[in-house]
Amino acid sequence: MIPVDFIHRLAAVAARETLPRFRQAGLIANKLAAGFDPVTEADRETEKAIRALIRTEFPDHGILGEEFGAEGAENRYVWVVDPIDGTRSFIAGIPLWGTLVGLTEEGDAVAGMMVQPFIGELFYATGHGAHYEGPHGRTRLATRATENLADATLCTTTPAIFEPAQRAAFDRLERQVRLSRYGTDCYAYCMLAAGQVDLVVEAGLQPYDIVALIPIIEQAGGVVTDWSGGPAENGGSIIAAGSAGLHSQALAFLASA
Amino acid sequence: MIPVDFIHRLAAVAARETLPRFRQAGLIANKLAAGFDPVTEADRETEKAIRALIRTEFPDHGILGEEFGAEGAENRYVWVVDPIDGTRSFIAGIPLWGTLVGLTEEGDAVAGMMVQPFIGELFYATGHGAHYEGPHGRTRLATRATENLADATLCTTTPAIFEPAQRAAFDRLERQVRLSRYGTDCYAYCMLAAGQVDLVVEAGLQPYDIVALIPIIEQAGGVVTDWSGGPAENGGSIIAAGSAGLHSQALAFLASA
Repeated sequence: MIPVDFIHRLAAVAARETLPRFRQAGLIANKLAAGFDPVTEADRETEKAIRALIRTEFPDHGILGEEFGAEGAENRYVWVVDPIDGTRSFIAGIPLWGTLVGLTEEGDAVAGMMVQPFIGELFYATGHGAHYEGPHGRTRLATRATENLADATLCTTTPAIFEPAQRAAFDRLERQVRLSRYGTDCYAYCMLAAGQVDLVVEAGLQPYDIVALIPIIEQAGGVVTDWSGGPAENGGSIIAAGSAGLHSQALAFLASA
Repeated sequence: MIPVDFIHRLAAVAARETLPRFRQAGLIANKLAAGFDPVTEADRETEKAIRALIRTEFPDHGILGEEFGAEGAENRYVWVVDPIDGTRSFIAGIPLWGTLVGLTEEGDAVAGMMVQPFIGELFYATGHGAHYEGPHGRTRLATRATENLADATLCTTTPAIFEPAQRAAFDRLERQVRLSRYGTDCYAYCMLAAGQVDLVVEAGLQPYDIVALIPIIEQAGGVVTDWSGGPAENGGSIIAAGSAGLHSQALAFLASA
């Protein structure tokens, strides 16, 4: 498996490339001619640096990244990189973005990390449980055992990500829960692994938005699938839950959408 | 005016009371018989400690706080305290909550601070500009000069805070801007003062939700009023903007609601 030391090296590269560019002006380009899809110099430079580190350490592994696509995707092991998940938070100064690096083996997510360099938080799983290191200490990550939707906290980045039928299903689910929070990107999945929230429901995700988070969620005791209950590795419509029971209750509201 | 040293002492008290209770289980009580209005031990203990510090240092000032109400509200100077603004973020593990302490003189907000103890960030204004201290440095706060709504970033905690007519007005405004972010509570006003976002629009605020933030926004170059353009000190429907021009453009969408 991946040594924890390599996780720390990835986190250091992410911090080195992102921090000097966070809360600076003038770094936003626009990827789409119509609409607004921000991509920053920080995204590109961070992915370049992470790719270089992976290539040097694991030359026979493949890499799939948000900004520079796939190389060696036919290999047994493929790294999946989102240099800045939550670019919209990043360009608004809000420190809930993260650098995501996951590892797949024959398509299954087996290891992953999320680092939030501004706060100084690292969430990771390499096959020996899910772990957290932060500014106020380190701990093992474990989801909490909320049994009923009526007691659950639900997160999503914004209801605007859903297509109309998905939105109707999400709204029905949201009415069942005690509390919902928006604006959370990758941070929500890490709070789920940390036992702070119970459900994360999103749609329109790319593999690089979720692969790194799957091992963190699963090795903390959670369940993450697509809305039909299948593997989450391909992205799309995603539901993560702190327990199998809660996952099953929430999925019932989403499976038809 | 208030010495900066006192701001630091308030921030230290907030950190001492909130941090040991953040991301812990079992601290939530429910203030409302119907619905869900979380109040935590952290809210109560933090406000108690801040009140004690203010009473000792400024015995002839009044205090208004979220959890324990008003004392000496007829005094020339009144401190306005929200021990944890963003309790819902707090109980979801998301570090965008803050401790707010403001000072009014004859009802006008003249000094204020927001501390986010988990990240280690302090935003404050005491009459000599607005200032920031954080884990990666300190700086003077200044809003940015975005001229047009089409280039603006808009924040709100959640569209669910608006009454129907307000929601319709907010939705119309939201369609004009480049980017909107949810889930931000007090953190959004600080990002506005830091020149990272351009507009914050909310409703249903109490005085303790906004008084501490007014001097930070204004002394950073921004404008904050209610939706009819009047003083923000009483809470209610609030709009903050990075410049007078943008405030005026956005207010046109809200003033009738």
